[in-house]
Amino acid sequence: MSTQFHPPLRTLMGPGPSDVSPRVLQALARPCIGHLDPQFIALMDDIKALLQYAFQTKNALTLPISAPGSAGMEACFVNLLEAGDKAIVCQNGVFGARMKENVERCGATAVMVEDRWGEAVDPQKLEDALKQHQDAKLVAFVHAETSTGAQSDAKTLCALATKHGCLSIVDTVTSLGGTEVAVDDWGADAVYAGTQKCLSCVPGISPVTFSERAVAAIKARSTKVQSWFLDMELVMGYWGGASKRAYHHTAPVNALYALHESLLILKEEGLENAWQRHQQNHLALAAGLECLGISFVVPEKSRLPQLNNVTIPAGIDDALVRKTLLERYSLEIGAGLGDLAGKVWRIGLMGFASKQENVLLCLNALDNVLIELGANHQPGEAAATAARAYLVPNQKLEVFEN
Amino acid sequence: MSTQFHPPLRTLMGPGPSDVSPRVLQALARPCIGHLDPQFIALMDDIKALLQYAFQTKNALTLPISAPGSAGMEACFVNLLEAGDKAIVCQNGVFGARMKENVERCGATAVMVEDRWGEAVDPQKLEDALKQHQDAKLVAFVHAETSTGAQSDAKTLCALATKHGCLSIVDTVTSLGGTEVAVDDWGADAVYAGTQKCLSCVPGISPVTFSERAVAAIKARSTKVQSWFLDMELVMGYWGGASKRAYHHTAPVNALYALHESLLILKEEGLENAWQRHQQNHLALAAGLECLGISFVVPEKSRLPQLNNVTIPAGIDDALVRKTLLERYSLEIGAGLGDLAGKVWRIGLMGFASKQENVLLCLNALDNVLIELGANHQPGEAAATAARAYLVPNQKLEVFEN
Repeated sequence: MSTQFHPPLRTLMGPGPSDVSPRVLQALARPCIGHLDPQFIALMDDIKALLQYAFQTKNALTLPISAPGSAGMEACFVNLLEAGDKAIVCQNGVFGARMKENVERCGATAVMVEDRWGEAVDPQKLEDALKQHQDAKLVAFVHAETSTGAQSDAKTLCALATKHGCLSIVDTVTSLGGTEVAVDDWGADAVYAGTQKCLSCVPGISPVTFSERAVAAIKARSTKVQSWFLDMELVMGYWGGASKRAYHHTAPVNALYALHESLLILKEEGLENAWQRHQQNHLALAAGLECLGISFVVPEKSRLPQLNNVTIPAGIDDALVRKTLLERYSLEIGAGLGDLAGKVWRIGLMGFASKQENVLLCLNALDNVLIELGANHQPGEAAATAARAYLVPNQKLEVFEN
Repeated sequence: MSTQFHPPLRTLMGPGPSDVSPRVLQALARPCIGHLDPQFIALMDDIKALLQYAFQTKNALTLPISAPGSAGMEACFVNLLEAGDKAIVCQNGVFGARMKENVERCGATAVMVEDRWGEAVDPQKLEDALKQHQDAKLVAFVHAETSTGAQSDAKTLCALATKHGCLSIVDTVTSLGGTEVAVDDWGADAVYAGTQKCLSCVPGISPVTFSERAVAAIKARSTKVQSWFLDMELVMGYWGGASKRAYHHTAPVNALYALHESLLILKEEGLENAWQRHQQNHLALAAGLECLGISFVVPEKSRLPQLNNVTIPAGIDDALVRKTLLERYSLEIGAGLGDLAGKVWRIGLMGFASKQENVLLCLNALDNVLIELGANHQPGEAAATAARAYLVPNQKLEVFEN
C-alpha cells in the first residue's frame, strides 16, 4: 500500500494494549527534545517519583526500561542471576513459562512450582520447594497472570522468599494501576510492569523497581550482566540521581512524555480510587456475563477485575465471534493464550477502558453476536439490567483539558 | 513538580534525536489498536517493505526491533554469536567499544582492529586480522561513527569479511536515510539502524535486517540465544510472513505508526534526493564554519554530511557555549563523546533537521555566542555568505498535509 496509515477507532477490551487516554496521545505528540536536555532530565526525575507512587515504593532504583514488558522481565532476570544459580519459578500460566526461559538463558536452573492455569499460586507448594532447594537464589512469580486472569497473593509469596533467604521477582504487568501493587509492603525485590494495560499508555515501555537488597546483589555479581542494553549498573548511570547523567542509550523521549502523562492521570485519580473503579466495573461486567450464560475461568476470590477470562460457550466459533465484534462494533476482546487458546476469551477493563460505557457496549455487542450465532441464553436486556445494579451513578471521569 | 510536561520547542542539531517531522508526531498520536489487529498486521507488512527500500535489500528478515539502536546492536550479536566464538571488531570510536562489550557478554572473544578516532576503518588492517584469525566467525564495524562523524567503506569491509568466510555486522544507526546504505550491494549480513537520526522519527525503535546467510547461521546455532526478548527466531514468529502471527511481545504500536510515516516520507523524497540534500546542507555548513575558524575532525573524504564533528576553538568553554545556544536560541548541538569529550562539538544535520534554515540558524547563533565569549574570528556575515554559495534555491521541502 505505502500510503498514510489511519487506524480505525477501536474500543480495546483485550489483554492489552488497552485504550490509550487522549491526554496520553496528546503528550506523545509533543515536540521531541534531547535525551540530555536539562528539561528532559527534570522530567525523568518526575517520572521516577510518579513510578515510586504507582509501585508504592521508596526504592531509589525505580525507572522505565526503554522496551516492552518482556524486556522488563528480562532486565530482572539477567541482572539478578548468574550462570549456575538456581531460581524457583511459580507457574500458573503463560508468563511463568517465559520466566523459565529467562532463567535458563542466564545459564541458571529453574525449579518449577506448578499450579493449574486459572488458579492463584499456592504458597504451600512454594514453601515446600524452598525447603527442598535451600540453594535457590530467587523466587519468581506473576502477580496478575495475563493469560488466565488470576491474581496471586504477592505479599505472602514474597515473604516466603525472604524467609528462606531468596530474592523475589514479581511480574505486575497487568496489575499496576488496576489492583493493589505494594512493593515495599510486600518486600518484593525486583518488580516489572507494562505501560499498555492499566496505565492507559501506549505499549513499548516497562517500569521496573529494584530493592536495596536487589541492588546489593547486582553489585555483588562476579560476572557481567549478559545484556549490555539491560545492565542496570549502566542504566543507572543515566537514570541515577547523579548531577551528571552519563549517556547509555538514547531514551525513547516521546514515549516517556506519554508515560509521564499516564502516571499523572493515575495520581490525580488516586491509586485506591483507580482500584475501586476497576473492581466496580468488573462486578458490573461479571453480572451481565452471567446473564449471557458465560462463566469465569478463575475462582471468584482470585479474579482480576481488569482482565476477565471467561469460557467460550459450547458450540460457539471463537474466531468468528471476535472477528464479528471487531468488524461490526470495532470492539476488540482477547483470544485465549497457550493452553487456553480457543477455550476462553479475555475481556479487559483496563485503565482508561475500565468505564461504564465499555461494560454496556461489550455486553450488548456480545449478546447480539451470540444470538446471531444461535447461542441459547437469556435476552440481553437482562444482562444490561444485571450490570446496571453495579454501575455507579457518579463514577469519576478523567478530566481532559487541552 | 508533577504537572503536565510541555517541552520547549528546540532545534535539534546534535547527534540525535534530531528534529522529528510534524507528520511523524501526528502519526504517533493516532489511536492505538491491537498488536494482532488485522489492520495492524497489514501495517507491519508495509513497514517491512519500506524498510527493505530504506536498507536497499531484499532480505525477508527485515523488521523493527521494539527498542532503541543499542538493542538492535545487541540483537545482531546475540543471535549470531555463541559462547566460544571469535569476532573481529573494527573500532574507530565509541560504538566499536560497545560492540566489543556485546561480543564479550556473549561469551565470545573480540579481536580488536583499531583506527584513530575520526578516521575511517582501514581495510588493510581488517584484512591482516582476518588472515591472522582464520577461526573468526564474524566481522563487525560501524558504518557511520556517531561519536566521531567518520564514515567507513562498508562495501569493501563486508567484501573482506565474506572473502574470509566471515559474517558481517554493520552499524548504520547514523547513516540510514542520510548517506547511502546498500545492504545487498554491500553483501552485509546483519545491519541495524536507529529511528532518531536521519529518519526524523522519535527515538526508541531499531530497524534491523538479516541476510539469508545470517538466518542460516541463526538456525544452525547449537545453543539458545541468550536474550529471550531479542531471539530472532521468536521475533520472526510475529513478524514473519506466516498468515498466523504468533504473539511474542506486545509491539510498540504507536511508535510503529511513527516509523511507518517516517519511512513513507523518505520514500516520497527518494533515497538519492535525501542523500543529496544532506550533502548539500553539509557543504553549506562546512563553508560557514570555516569562516568562523572552526575546523573538522574528520578528513574531507570520510566526513558524514549528517554529523559534523568540529574542534572546539582554543580557549572556548565547551559547556558554556552549548548552554547558551540552548537557552538563548533553543538550539541543541552535541557534546563530544568518549575520548573526544570536551574537545569537539557534534553538529547534526539529520533528516527533517537537514534544511537550509538550520544551517543559517546554527552559523549565526554560534557566531554570536563565540564573539560574546571573545573568540577571534571573521564576522558572521562572512560565514552566512560562504554558506549561501551552497544553499539551493529550490530545495525540496517536505509536504505537510493534514
